[in-house]
Amino acid sequence: MADLIARLRDALGPAGLLTDAADLEPFAIDWRRIFPGRPACVARPASTDQVAAVVRLCREAGVAVVPQGGNTGLAGGAVPDASGRQVVLSLGRMTAIRAIDPVGLTMTVEAGCVLRLAQEAAGRAGRLLPVSFAAEGSAMVGGAIAANAGGLNVVRYGMTRGLVLGLEIVLADGTVVDGLRALRKDNAGYDWKQLFIGSEGTLGIVTAAVLRLVARPRHVATALLAVPDPAAALRLLTLAQEELGDSIQGFELISDTSLALVARHHGLASPVGAKGWHVLIEAASSLPGLREAAEGVLATALEREDATDGVLAESGQQAAALWALRESVTESEAREGRSVKHDVSVPITAIPAFLDEAGAVLAAGAPGTRVNAFGHMGDGNIHYNVLVEPAHDADAINRLVHGVVDRFGGSISAEHGIGQYRVAELARHKRPEEIALARRIKAALDPDGLLNPGKVLARS
Amino acid sequence: MADLIARLRDALGPAGLLTDAADLEPFAIDWRRIFPGRPACVARPASTDQVAAVVRLCREAGVAVVPQGGNTGLAGGAVPDASGRQVVLSLGRMTAIRAIDPVGLTMTVEAGCVLRLAQEAAGRAGRLLPVSFAAEGSAMVGGAIAANAGGLNVVRYGMTRGLVLGLEIVLADGTVVDGLRALRKDNAGYDWKQLFIGSEGTLGIVTAAVLRLVARPRHVATALLAVPDPAAALRLLTLAQEELGDSIQGFELISDTSLALVARHHGLASPVGAKGWHVLIEAASSLPGLREAAEGVLATALEREDATDGVLAESGQQAAALWALRESVTESEAREGRSVKHDVSVPITAIPAFLDEAGAVLAAGAPGTRVNAFGHMGDGNIHYNVLVEPAHDADAINRLVHGVVDRFGGSISAEHGIGQYRVAELARHKRPEEIALARRIKAALDPDGLLNPGKVLARS
Repeated sequence: MADLIARLRDALGPAGLLTDAADLEPFAIDWRRIFPGRPACVARPASTDQVAAVVRLCREAGVAVVPQGGNTGLAGGAVPDASGRQVVLSLGRMTAIRAIDPVGLTMTVEAGCVLRLAQEAAGRAGRLLPVSFAAEGSAMVGGAIAANAGGLNVVRYGMTRGLVLGLEIVLADGTVVDGLRALRKDNAGYDWKQLFIGSEGTLGIVTAAVLRLVARPRHVATALLAVPDPAAALRLLTLAQEELGDSIQGFELISDTSLALVARHHGLASPVGAKGWHVLIEAASSLPGLREAAEGVLATALEREDATDGVLAESGQQAAALWALRESVTESEAREGRSVKHDVSVPITAIPAFLDEAGAVLAAGAPGTRVNAFGHMGDGNIHYNVLVEPAHDADAINRLVHGVVDRFGGSISAEHGIGQYRVAELARHKRPEEIALARRIKAALDPDGLLNPGKVLARS
Repeated sequence: MADLIARLRDALGPAGLLTDAADLEPFAIDWRRIFPGRPACVARPASTDQVAAVVRLCREAGVAVVPQGGNTGLAGGAVPDASGRQVVLSLGRMTAIRAIDPVGLTMTVEAGCVLRLAQEAAGRAGRLLPVSFAAEGSAMVGGAIAANAGGLNVVRYGMTRGLVLGLEIVLADGTVVDGLRALRKDNAGYDWKQLFIGSEGTLGIVTAAVLRLVARPRHVATALLAVPDPAAALRLLTLAQEELGDSIQGFELISDTSLALVARHHGLASPVGAKGWHVLIEAASSLPGLREAAEGVLATALEREDATDGVLAESGQQAAALWALRESVTESEAREGRSVKHDVSVPITAIPAFLDEAGAVLAAGAPGTRVNAFGHMGDGNIHYNVLVEPAHDADAINRLVHGVVDRFGGSISAEHGIGQYRVAELARHKRPEEIALARRIKAALDPDGLLNPGKVLARS
C-alpha cells in the first residue's frame, strides 16, 4: 500500500492525496454516520486524466477504488469498507462548469460541481436545472448521476437519468470514454451512458456530464389540502392530472402521523387543520391561467369531498410555509426517536391498499411500532418510516415492509439506491434472473471487481 | 437447418412457423425495399415462453435470430441477411394489451401490439400514449422500444426510452427476465432495461413492456410561421420556450426547398407565403390561456421580425392542414427523384451554422445536389436529405454530411437507428473507446453473436 500511495502522490501532487487520519475522517463515513469505514488514502484528482491515472494505479496494485462526491448518499454507497485497503477517489476538485447553452438548453459540468452551484449557474443564464433534493447544497453532480437521484420534482421532470444528455466516464481499466454530446436525440449505437447512471460507481466513474435545462416557468401555484384518507388523495391526483397536466411539479402526501410529529417537534401547525392526511400540490407554468386552474382543482376537490379543507398560497412566502410542513417531517421524526426507514415505490394506484396492508402487517408482526408515512405520491414513492422502540428488530421490520412491497410489484429503493445498506435486501427482492443479469454486466465492465466492491451487488 | 425447422414446428405448432417462399417474402425485406434478405424460416411465437423456446433452439443449432416487429424501420435493422441461414422471429402474434391503469398512468402491452392500437386503447381509457410517428399504423410496440423511436412529439415527451417503465426480455440464452414493474421510480439495482431500449434486438428480445401514459391535454394551439432564415427560427424557439414552456409538443422546421417540393408534387400552398423557411409550432395544455400565450408568441415574433407572416389554426381541421404541409415533405421528395437521406442531430444552437456549413460543403464537394432539409428543430434533429443526380455517389455524400455533423459534435442517427444501413458510418463516427465499450456489452449479453448479428455493430 505504501508503494501505491507513493505512486498516487507522484501522479496527483501533494494537494491531490490525503493520508493523515484527521484528513481522512470526513471521507471515511457517511453524513448520517451509519456506515463507518477506513480508507487507505483519499485521492483528489483535479482532472479526468488524473482520475484515469488513479484508477490505473489502483488496478495495477489490485486495490479497490470507492468514488465519492458530496458524500450525501443515504445508503452508504460512497464510503469505503473498514479494511483500510480501499482508496477513496473524491471528485471534489473537479468543479468546473464547462459550458452553458441557454438556447439549446444544456449545460456541461464536471462531476465535483456542487448541485446547488450548478442550479445557480443555470439560473443566472435564465434557465432551470430541475434536479433538486434536500442535500443539494452539498451533493455533487457526479453523485446525483451515479445515484440517479430523485427528489422533489420528479413527477414533472423525471429522475436525474432523464436529464443526462451526455457523460464522460472513466472505466475500470482507466479508459476515458468521452460521450459529452449535447444532443436531445441520439440513436447512433448503444446508449452506453445509461449503464453508468444509477449504478453507484460500481461500473465506472462519472467525471463530467451534459445536463438538460428547461425554461423557467413564470407562474407557480402551491396548494395544501386536507384529505380524508389516501384513497381521496389518489382521486385528487387524477383530478390534478386532468386539470393541470404536466404543469404539476410536486404531489406530496403527508400522513396524519407526520403532521403530528411536525406539530410536536417544530411547532408548525397546518393551516388546513391538524386532522387527517394532507396533500401538497405544486404546479408551475408560463401559461396564463395556472392559478385559475389550481383554484378549480381546489373547488372541485372540496365539492367532491375528496378534500375537507384547502388553501392556495397567495405569495412565495406562503408557499414556502406550506413546504416547510412537508420538509420538516424527516427532522421531526429524528427528534421523536429511533426509526427504521423505507424508501419504497409501488404502482401509484396501489398506494392506498399498500398503506393499509403494510399497516396491518406491522400491527400484527411488530406491535408497538408507529408508521410515519409521507412522500412523493405523484411518483408512487412513499417514505414509509417506522418509529420503533429499542426492543424492535430493524431487519425484521424491513422484511415485513418489503414483503408487502413485493406483493404490490414495488421497489425497495425508489430513489435512495442500494449502496451497502440494501445489498442483502436487494438479493432477496429481485428475481434471480435479474441478479444474474446484473452480475453479468458488472463482470463485463469491472472484471477485477475493483470499482466500489460490495455496493449494489454483494462481492462475488 | 431442416432439423431446426422441425424442432421449431414442434415447439410452435403449424401456425407458428412459416417456411413457404411466398409466406416468407413480407418478412424478408424492409418496407422501403432497400435491404433484401432471405430467412431460413419465420418463427411466429404466441407467447414469451415460445419466444424463449425459439431462441434456445436456434442457439443450440448455432443459428442467428433476427427479431422483427412491424418491419417499418428505416435502417434495415429487422430483416435477415441473404444467407438463408437466419431465422426471423416475428413478434406479430403477441398482441395483447395486458393492462391499462388510467389512474397510475401506465399500460402493459405485448411487443407485437401495433402502436396505433395501443394509442387507441390508451385513448379509450381517457389517456394519451405519447409515442407517435409516421409508421404508427404498422409499427409494433416492441420495435418502437428496440429502436428507441422518436417522432413528432419528442420535444415534449422525449424518446420512447423515457416512456418505458418496465420490460420483459428474452436473453440470448433463452432466459426470460421479467421486469414488468409499473413504477415511476425504481433505484433498486442496475436499471438493466436501458440496455435493451434502442439496441435494435442485438442484446435481447423485447416481449412486453410497461409504458407511461399521460393525461390528455385539453387545448391545442398550432401555428405556422414564415421565418427569414434558420437563425430566426432559433430565436423563435427560445421565445416559444419562454412563453409556452413544456406545453410545446412540436417545433418543426421546413426549408424553402421542402415547401417548393410540397407545392410542386402535392399542390399544397403555404397559407403564410411560399417564400422563406417555415416553422410549425404546436403546443397543448389543459390550462386555460394556452391560446392567449400562442397569440402572444406570434405577435412578438412578427414584431421582432423573426417571422414575416404567421397563422394560428382556428380549428382542428386547420391544424391538420398546417401539418399536411410538413407531413408531405417526405413523399414530395420521393416524387422529385433520388435522394440521399440523413437523420442527423446537432446541438440545437448549432442548427443554423450546421445548415450553412453542410450546404457549403455539398456545393463544393458534390455540385449539382440540392438540399431538402426539414425536421424536428426543437430536438436538434434535422432530416438533411440531399437530392441527387444519377452521377452522384451516395457514400461520398454521406461522408461529406456526416463530416460536418462530427465537427458540430452531432449524431449521424438521431432517431432512425443504425440497423445494417449505418454500421460502417457508425464505426467511422464514434470514438474507438465507444465502439470498444459497445463490443464489450454485446459480448457480455450475446457471447455467441446470434442475436441480430451485423446490426448496429459489424460482425466481429
